[in-house]
Amino acid sequence: MVDSSLRGRDFISTQDWTLDELETLFTLAQVLKADKREGRPTPHLLAKTLYMIFFDASTRTRNSFETGMTQLGGHAIYLSPDKMQISHGENARDTANVLSRYGDGIAIRHCAYGEGNDYLNDVATHASIPLLNMQCDRYHPCQILADYLTIRERFGNTQGLKLGVAWTSAPNYVRPLSVPQSLILMMPRFGIDVTLAYPPEFKLMPDIEALAQANAEAADATFEITHDFEDAFRDADAVIPKSWGPLVTTQDTKEGLGLIEKYPTWRCGQDQMRLGKEHMIYMHPLPADRGREVTDEVIDGPQSVVYDEAENRLHVQKALMALTM
Amino acid sequence: MVDSSLRGRDFISTQDWTLDELETLFTLAQVLKADKREGRPTPHLLAKTLYMIFFDASTRTRNSFETGMTQLGGHAIYLSPDKMQISHGENARDTANVLSRYGDGIAIRHCAYGEGNDYLNDVATHASIPLLNMQCDRYHPCQILADYLTIRERFGNTQGLKLGVAWTSAPNYVRPLSVPQSLILMMPRFGIDVTLAYPPEFKLMPDIEALAQANAEAADATFEITHDFEDAFRDADAVIPKSWGPLVTTQDTKEGLGLIEKYPTWRCGQDQMRLGKEHMIYMHPLPADRGREVTDEVIDGPQSVVYDEAENRLHVQKALMALTM
Amino acid sequence: MVDSSLRGRDFISTQDWTLDELETLFTLAQVLKADKREGRPTPHLLAKTLYMIFFDASTRTRNSFETGMTQLGGHAIYLSPDKMQISHGENARDTANVLSRYGDGIAIRHCAYGEGNDYLNDVATHASIPLLNMQCDRYHPCQILADYLTIRERFGNTQGLKLGVAWTSAPNYVRPLSVPQSLILMMPRFGIDVTLAYPPEFKLMPDIEALAQANAEAADATFEITHDFEDAFRDADAVIPKSWGPLVTTQDTKEGLGLIEKYPTWRCGQDQMRLGKEHMIYMHPLPADRGREVTDEVIDGPQSVVYDEAENRLHVQKALMALTM
Repeated sequence: MVDSSLRGRDFISTQDWTLDELETLFTLAQVLKADKREGRPTPHLLAKTLYMIFFDASTRTRNSFETGMTQLGGHAIYLSPDKMQISHGENARDTANVLSRYGDGIAIRHCAYGEGNDYLNDVATHASIPLLNMQCDRYHPCQILADYLTIRERFGNTQGLKLGVAWTSAPNYVRPLSVPQSLILMMPRFGIDVTLAYPPEFKLMPDIEALAQANAEAADATFEITHDFEDAFRDADAVIPKSWGPLVTTQDTKEGLGLIEKYPTWRCGQDQMRLGKEHMIYMHPLPADRGREVTDEVIDGPQSVVYDEAENRLHVQKALMALTM
Repeated sequence: MVDSSLRGRDFISTQDWTLDELETLFTLAQVLKADKREGRPTPHLLAKTLYMIFFDASTRTRNSFETGMTQLGGHAIYLSPDKMQISHGENARDTANVLSRYGDGIAIRHCAYGEGNDYLNDVATHASIPLLNMQCDRYHPCQILADYLTIRERFGNTQGLKLGVAWTSAPNYVRPLSVPQSLILMMPRFGIDVTLAYPPEFKLMPDIEALAQANAEAADATFEITHDFEDAFRDADAVIPKSWGPLVTTQDTKEGLGLIEKYPTWRCGQDQMRLGKEHMIYMHPLPADRGREVTDEVIDGPQSVVYDEAENRLHVQKALMALTM
Repeated sequence: MVDSSLRGRDFISTQDWTLDELETLFTLAQVLKADKREGRPTPHLLAKTLYMIFFDASTRTRNSFETGMTQLGGHAIYLSPDKMQISHGENARDTANVLSRYGDGIAIRHCAYGEGNDYLNDVATHASIPLLNMQCDRYHPCQILADYLTIRERFGNTQGLKLGVAWTSAPNYVRPLSVPQSLILMMPRFGIDVTLAYPPEFKLMPDIEALAQANAEAADATFEITHDFEDAFRDADAVIPKSWGPLVTTQDTKEGLGLIEKYPTWRCGQDQMRLGKEHMIYMHPLPADRGREVTDEVIDGPQSVVYDEAENRLHVQKALMALTM
């Protein structure tokens, strides 16, 4: 049987869960990963339904959640707001109340800046079933759970490891801040020293950076911000070079894309990879903008663990669902 | 085991089913509701498939049917005609025959005036598996099953209750006639006195109004039509104020929206609610056009049972599927 | 238990499988068909996931695969590239690797001329789970499996039967070559004499026609090409009159549609049907362009087995999935 102490809990940010609670999740994720490898059935959510509401497109997120529900014996329904009646006067209160009467969990992806997280909280307030964050404008907690599991599988004890989180230049569209923000919030809590590198215009939300600092201090870890791309790589055990938009500086798309173009050398190649420890791993939540964010040589090379990382999305999310739903 | 006497039956209008047959359905709906509450598995449709074809968008309908199939051990496939080959020369005969060879039930929502019900009947004629109506231009029988179950749960014996069905003004789009038409057809058969209130241009299809009258007479109930909004509320036990289009008068959208604008005071507020019995309940199939059809005070207030009503969609539809498929 | 010798195998063309392997599939298809008829559960793929990626719309293909997975105890996810991140820089390598980590099979439909088959092979190269062809620009192997099963059910031993494959005129859009190409490749391997009839501009890919010839010779069957529509019907046991585009001649849509218009008499009616053997059956993969490809009289008449043929899609695909996944 799955631990029931987290039944009914929302998961909007890792910050809402204690270290012990997160540890419970990682432990179950590893059990479920072994169960899958060994072919053991895991019908922990038999006949249960997860509603997945996608305001933004997705591959990994949808497929990992939906496959996960099938492996747990239940079913996930893929919903997009244009096919729903959210546009016909249906508010978050109605959506939350009705879905709570039918099924067992609501997962939402809503990345619109200044809107997504508010909507998630609004639904969570009215829902009597757990609300799971599939990425909003502030957080992408499931991705970071997968990242942490990947690092721990590789290195064992994570205390004192150095993780570099680096902005990269990918000027085709403006990406949310949720990945780097969730990384700097959670990783220090597990004793990982984080170096965050970005050009000045690409700063993260001030309250998040402050909270990351506090988390690091509380855990005797360090959290540093730098404007030098290569600082993120130097002596690191793991590096996550990843584009995001200058959304704190400007929310104008054209201006944002212009700022991204200003820093074309913020791209991960072998030169940067050589700055890290010998065993340093390259991570990316995918899809990577190949050629802009990273060279094929690196992402397809021996230091890349991107597919292990993508796989771990499945296992941590199955654990999350099995615990909360 | 589920009663098998209704296996294979279509459900296009409640009128096609005898009172006893409807009673069988309500009894099973209550059993399934208790099963869900108590966590008892209900794999009555193990590995069976329902095809849901949506010509019009939906939240509650899709989610309640798809969740219901999962809870019954089967699976519902969400289909929209633009993704199917209905546009590539596939006629109802081919669709019906092929789906009958693969799966176990076909559910259709098709509200286009003068087309929907014909299409459902066309598919039903050629299909050898049950055809379930998820709303057409004439009927929305599943909604009305849920409404009746909600009323019965609240009041027990329904003989002699008074139900008000009132048109409301919601000028953003023209809604089908199916909800009020299905209400006036079925409710009197269970002994409920129905008062139907609408401005003259919003009359329902004459054959339906006549059939409602006949149903009422056969059951010693009353069926009254009035053009005074407040008549629907006076002394009522339950009221369902709900917008629909003046489709019998005009099928021109612009003209229709203009007619809806003519009656802005047809909105349900506390003043109307005070006209009913003390215990009167407010019902609406959702989504409600808040502020136009109803005030927030009423729909979110103590007399509102809209979420109970929405929930009952799940239970009556599960009963419907378990009986027919 | 299902034979495990084909576990993990791709299925892009029937040509990649030996006769014995195809025989294993047909045998299992017949068992699964009987299981369904008798109501025996077939949970051979319990909690497993198939990803169905549709670059082109479909009814039969999606519904037969998705229903099949449900009947086998698993689940199929319907994906269309516009909802995925294939447009956001995700290449076949990433898609293949990630889905291989989550689920159990990938099925793709991609009919773009000169692209589809390459994409399938690209995904198959990187995937560690089986790749199933739901139709590409070269092959539609699942359709042909269903066709063969239908012929065998009707006639028993297929050695020496005559099958006519005839082009028909359906000028509303340009269809892929995959159906006739897969037919001429596989049918002769089972000893069926094939006559292929088309106007000169509608020739198939030269390498496929050559391979069909070689397959026929190896099996002591005949393969003939003719430019006379009625040759396909004369003395035939089964006939499959079906439109395709002049894609080998021109890939310009307007020019292609013009060429289709040149041959309006290439339509299957009773006159042609009378040319075959008394017991000759009419087949079509559906959707048929009624009135252009075939008269209603024929497709809805006693010689038509189109619904049996459509049904067999389900059974052969279930066998395919149960064997490979």
